[in-house]
Amino acid sequence: MSHPLFGPEVRMMLDEKNEVGLRAFCESLHPATIAETLTDDFDVEESWQVLERTNIRDQAAIFEYFPILWQVQMLEGTGRAHIARLIEQMSHDDRVALLRRLSPRVAEELLRLVDEADRRDIKALFQHEENTVGALMTTDYAWVPQNLTCVEAIERLRHSAPNSESMYYVFILDEATRRLHGITSLRDLILSPRHTKVADLMETDLVTLRVTDDREKAAEVLARYDFLALPVADDHGRLVGIVTHDDVIDVVVQEATEDLQKQGAVGALTDNYLEVGFFEIWRKRTLWLSFLFLTGLLTFSAMEMFEGELKSLDVLIFFIPVCIATGGNSGTQAATLITRAMALGQVTVSDWWRVLRHEFMIGLAMGVTLGLLAIVRSLIVPDHMLLFVDGSGSIAKWHFGLVMAQVVLAICVLGTMIGAMLPLGFKRLGIDPALASSPFVTTFVDVTGIFVYFTVVKLYLL
Amino acid sequence: MSHPLFGPEVRMMLDEKNEVGLRAFCESLHPATIAETLTDDFDVEESWQVLERTNIRDQAAIFEYFPILWQVQMLEGTGRAHIARLIEQMSHDDRVALLRRLSPRVAEELLRLVDEADRRDIKALFQHEENTVGALMTTDYAWVPQNLTCVEAIERLRHSAPNSESMYYVFILDEATRRLHGITSLRDLILSPRHTKVADLMETDLVTLRVTDDREKAAEVLARYDFLALPVADDHGRLVGIVTHDDVIDVVVQEATEDLQKQGAVGALTDNYLEVGFFEIWRKRTLWLSFLFLTGLLTFSAMEMFEGELKSLDVLIFFIPVCIATGGNSGTQAATLITRAMALGQVTVSDWWRVLRHEFMIGLAMGVTLGLLAIVRSLIVPDHMLLFVDGSGSIAKWHFGLVMAQVVLAICVLGTMIGAMLPLGFKRLGIDPALASSPFVTTFVDVTGIFVYFTVVKLYLL
Repeated sequence: MSHPLFGPEVRMMLDEKNEVGLRAFCESLHPATIAETLTDDFDVEESWQVLERTNIRDQAAIFEYFPILWQVQMLEGTGRAHIARLIEQMSHDDRVALLRRLSPRVAEELLRLVDEADRRDIKALFQHEENTVGALMTTDYAWVPQNLTCVEAIERLRHSAPNSESMYYVFILDEATRRLHGITSLRDLILSPRHTKVADLMETDLVTLRVTDDREKAAEVLARYDFLALPVADDHGRLVGIVTHDDVIDVVVQEATEDLQKQGAVGALTDNYLEVGFFEIWRKRTLWLSFLFLTGLLTFSAMEMFEGELKSLDVLIFFIPVCIATGGNSGTQAATLITRAMALGQVTVSDWWRVLRHEFMIGLAMGVTLGLLAIVRSLIVPDHMLLFVDGSGSIAKWHFGLVMAQVVLAICVLGTMIGAMLPLGFKRLGIDPALASSPFVTTFVDVTGIFVYFTVVKLYLL
Repeated sequence: MSHPLFGPEVRMMLDEKNEVGLRAFCESLHPATIAETLTDDFDVEESWQVLERTNIRDQAAIFEYFPILWQVQMLEGTGRAHIARLIEQMSHDDRVALLRRLSPRVAEELLRLVDEADRRDIKALFQHEENTVGALMTTDYAWVPQNLTCVEAIERLRHSAPNSESMYYVFILDEATRRLHGITSLRDLILSPRHTKVADLMETDLVTLRVTDDREKAAEVLARYDFLALPVADDHGRLVGIVTHDDVIDVVVQEATEDLQKQGAVGALTDNYLEVGFFEIWRKRTLWLSFLFLTGLLTFSAMEMFEGELKSLDVLIFFIPVCIATGGNSGTQAATLITRAMALGQVTVSDWWRVLRHEFMIGLAMGVTLGLLAIVRSLIVPDHMLLFVDGSGSIAKWHFGLVMAQVVLAICVLGTMIGAMLPLGFKRLGIDPALASSPFVTTFVDVTGIFVYFTVVKLYLL
């Protein structure tokens, strides 16, 4: 989806100061295409030169499609008064997201220049915490009072809602109190006999959100019911806003990104990979890595506890890395599956016993397979590694192989069980289960794996 | 979003054979709510007893919200003729997805019972490969010819499209050839003066998909442009179907799940975690785990190559697990970030040099921090571990600490660079970059980390 043709053309029009051409460019293409062309091939100042050719409403439509960091940059390069006009034209939710990114002082200055009604609306949305439905919703919805007929309702919408992007759902409110009575759709208004009362048509079994709900809930509900929008009501049942399908897709993508980043032990980044500041990315990654390093150092202490056993037979040293790595890998698999299943609502904390049994069986079945591989590898270990250091003889290869098979089996089961239980345990404790990331599980299993390793070895060999 | 109240009520109505109550239940609630209540608290046969109380259209609407495995089970429990009627009422895309899950023989038998027009439509959709736009699209769209006025178009839609779920976008076609001329929206038809020609209103700068496009492309385009639906055209510009916003949300969720599962080295599962067959899950996980185990065994061989160095100084053994684990962790972080950034289109293969420099700097910065921690840990190593085995004396703690700091630094940089380059390399080779999973990266870095470890150690100590 790149638009290789527009860039050079726009460049030429800019050089020639071809106002008519630039206006045509801004008016004929989709705002997303225009925004993409400008961010790819032009700088902030040139983008303004292009945007200036069109009216403020189109400017706002294009502006909304710029990445938010680019929006912030653009604001720095133009007059406050112009920005205020632009903000008045932007979608209610997008402009609040933008103002959140500005320094409070700049945001405050801008707000003073925005007209009264918009300012009140922005302030109302601004008060909601990030990641809540309140911060995601827009107050720009289509509504009619309940005593109208279909044809009257359509007529009303023609006059009252021409700018509302989301007029496909029509909310039926009490005109005085704004209490939400029901929902109907533009489709039903058109398909029903003209003089049907809206009140007879509306759906009253409503799924409503609250401003304080997590935005993930909005995504889950909207995706489950295939709705285009969801109403957000306050404690008194008054409609305060709606959440629309396009914002929900963005939430789904962002949440998936955050889950992936947490599972990779990065910590969620707020921006595009190449745009995140070096310090932010260093801090988040180093924090995790240092924590894992310090935890991982416990393998040193664990091995120290078995120093005697470790040195009694050379071959033991060589099998440690692959054995504990296998535990980490099987644990990562389990943790990944369980975390995602929890995020999708397929598994809850109360399923822990079922999950544990399931993972125990899987761990056992996988461990047997890997155990066989361990036997094969043991058969080609050089003879001198199997000599006891104290001179008390050596150990037979097949004997050693059988012991290693049991080590691998035990570690594999340990890994799957830890990997499955950590996310569930985290959730139970109110910690985000996505933090039971693969490096976290791996490190945890590395340390415990050392104990399993030497416990099994001592049982049979030493 | 559980509905604890409906289950017992429906159970009572079933026991009392309360037909009126069951019909009211089916007709008054959202189909998704009904489907959820039934799958949670009832079995397949009971679900049929509930559904039977309502008309076939509502049955189909509810049926679509059952999980697909449950749909398959339900089909087994009822007569073919009834299923055929149900299929005729289902959404065009959902029913094809269902038929794909049935054995070809059963699907063929069912199709014979479905009426002619629906059968042709199903066959047309059925031919497209899974994960393509063709398999995702529906042929159930609203269209009008281009010579109508707005009021005529609305009138036409009232008659032709009452069942179409997606009549918010109206496609303007050549009546004879079905060539796509433009798109308008129900909203614009209503807001424009009544006698405006549709042709003057329509958007002709169209973003169209092809049936062979990857469904991820549909998701990306729809999310970027905030569309409700996208047209799918053939080589001759004829409209063959549309992809709607609700299917795209499902795609986004599924793709994120698959990416997470691949990154956890599981291999993408097709179903709900607790519903996947034991054998399928065992096979996918064991395959990966065995591959990683065999690769991990190379750490054995790598350590064998440094057997002399390894045994010359006791302390060396103890630092190996934590050092190679750190490489794996830093590599996992990098791989996670790059893979996701690629999936979101933020980074492409051509950015490799920029990514490499970036990760090199990050690796260096993180390595210095971890190196300091390594020095601290080295200072508390017991004295006897620092004695050379050949009796040639011992090594000073601070000296050993400085060497370990450099080992950790080098492995950290190695990890980030491998973690960053593997997904890009995979992509370049046409392999899914999500397969550069954290266990894969970890195992890869474990083996190479052994070499780095002993190379640095030999340089300074031996």
